[in-house]
Amino acid sequence: MPSSVFATEIATFADRLAAASANVTLPLFRTPLDADDKSDDGVFDPVTAADRDAETAMRALIRDAYPEHGIEGEEHDDERTDADYVWVLDPIDGTRAFISGLPLWGTLIGLKHKGKPVFGLLHQPFTGETFTGATFPGEEPVSLYRRGSIRHDLRTRARPELSEATISTTSPRQFSGATLEAYDRVERQCRLARYGYDCYAYAMLAAGHVDLVVEAGLKPCDILPLVPIIEAAGGIVTTWDGAPVTAGGTAIAAGDARLHEAALALLGA
Amino acid sequence: MPSSVFATEIATFADRLAAASANVTLPLFRTPLDADDKSDDGVFDPVTAADRDAETAMRALIRDAYPEHGIEGEEHDDERTDADYVWVLDPIDGTRAFISGLPLWGTLIGLKHKGKPVFGLLHQPFTGETFTGATFPGEEPVSLYRRGSIRHDLRTRARPELSEATISTTSPRQFSGATLEAYDRVERQCRLARYGYDCYAYAMLAAGHVDLVVEAGLKPCDILPLVPIIEAAGGIVTTWDGAPVTAGGTAIAAGDARLHEAALALLGA
Repeated sequence: MPSSVFATEIATFADRLAAASANVTLPLFRTPLDADDKSDDGVFDPVTAADRDAETAMRALIRDAYPEHGIEGEEHDDERTDADYVWVLDPIDGTRAFISGLPLWGTLIGLKHKGKPVFGLLHQPFTGETFTGATFPGEEPVSLYRRGSIRHDLRTRARPELSEATISTTSPRQFSGATLEAYDRVERQCRLARYGYDCYAYAMLAAGHVDLVVEAGLKPCDILPLVPIIEAAGGIVTTWDGAPVTAGGTAIAAGDARLHEAALALLGA
Repeated sequence: MPSSVFATEIATFADRLAAASANVTLPLFRTPLDADDKSDDGVFDPVTAADRDAETAMRALIRDAYPEHGIEGEEHDDERTDADYVWVLDPIDGTRAFISGLPLWGTLIGLKHKGKPVFGLLHQPFTGETFTGATFPGEEPVSLYRRGSIRHDLRTRARPELSEATISTTSPRQFSGATLEAYDRVERQCRLARYGYDCYAYAMLAAGHVDLVVEAGLKPCDILPLVPIIEAAGGIVTTWDGAPVTAGGTAIAAGDARLHEAALALLGA
């Protein structure tokens, strides 16, 4: 595992962040929780106290260890976003899954260097799984799956054809109009479609069990921490226009670059 | 936990069945698997060798321990279905989730007495969770959640209003025409909809995190083992016509009988 001292230090520190987040979130999972409605349009958008408190806990650790680093999160204001290194935090990606008792939400922790994602971690505290990827410039990409004593590389699977592909999206009903038509052009060509897995779908893509994840309406913190995991595992993720996903919005992730190309063509058709 | 010697014996034996099934299925989970296409209409219907072999293993144990009992399963022919006690087996409910690496499939084990479900078990080998329910005639209903050293009753939550309810279905795209319209009449009234959880959605209903599960196209083995779990936890499950679900087809499960009544009225509207 050829990686710099800094890369190793970051990976170790990210585990501390994940543990601090889990200390807040896991005790509240599967307990009766009041959910705020923070949406403008009256659509139910559950955010739990766990989400807020976990982000607070992670921010305190970052400020202490790396006071010069910036922080972006979902629940609090951005800090020092002009810093060379900026952390991107989402303690509970998949709050709807969280409040429905489903163990497919995840804690997302990412690190950008000059705007480019270089490290990402997904932790699922209930299943005890951690998916990481490091893509520091000039270093060999490193991916890792860990669960208890189990640890191995993540590796996407070679699956160039849509007709053999498994596609996933959080809900087909997140799309409408031209966006729905575009998504459906892709899904109709796929062998199997699965809904409802939020960040966990990207983890399964990195692990070689899912081939395509197509979504829209993402915030940067929803997708940025997943980029190094996907890329270090051999996959590719862009917007529906083929651009970097760092600004959020749409995303199309593929385990196989040929599949990505085929799906991208259908999305833009 | 007032239960007869027989009820206790059945619960203990069902754990042996679940363990035998897990011995076959879990080692194959998240490995490259060839999936058969057993559907008539060309729709992708993955069935794994794990599913078949796990059912074979459970059938052997039942024949040995209870040679007078009947057995119904998905993968092999029915045996002695005119017996007083008939086991209903589905080693991998949620084969699509299984082959996509998602730990929300489950092993379903049910027992009917003279056609009526009296015991049910859902085991998820990856998360290590077991949900059981016993509703033997003349005995107190008993529900149980187990995971490692954790064990507690299952209890649905009181949530009489659709406007406060979380609804789940495996996929809204399983419905079409009048069935889709009926489903949508219910979903539109609900606060939150979640897709993609197969049997696990019913387990979350029994545990009080989901309020409604509405599905169609079920086989008896998909739903029968879940009936005692739902009922012993305080919930109710019927077809969309309000009839027992023992023959499969449609199902509407609710954690609160008042919610069931409200949803049933909308389905039939």
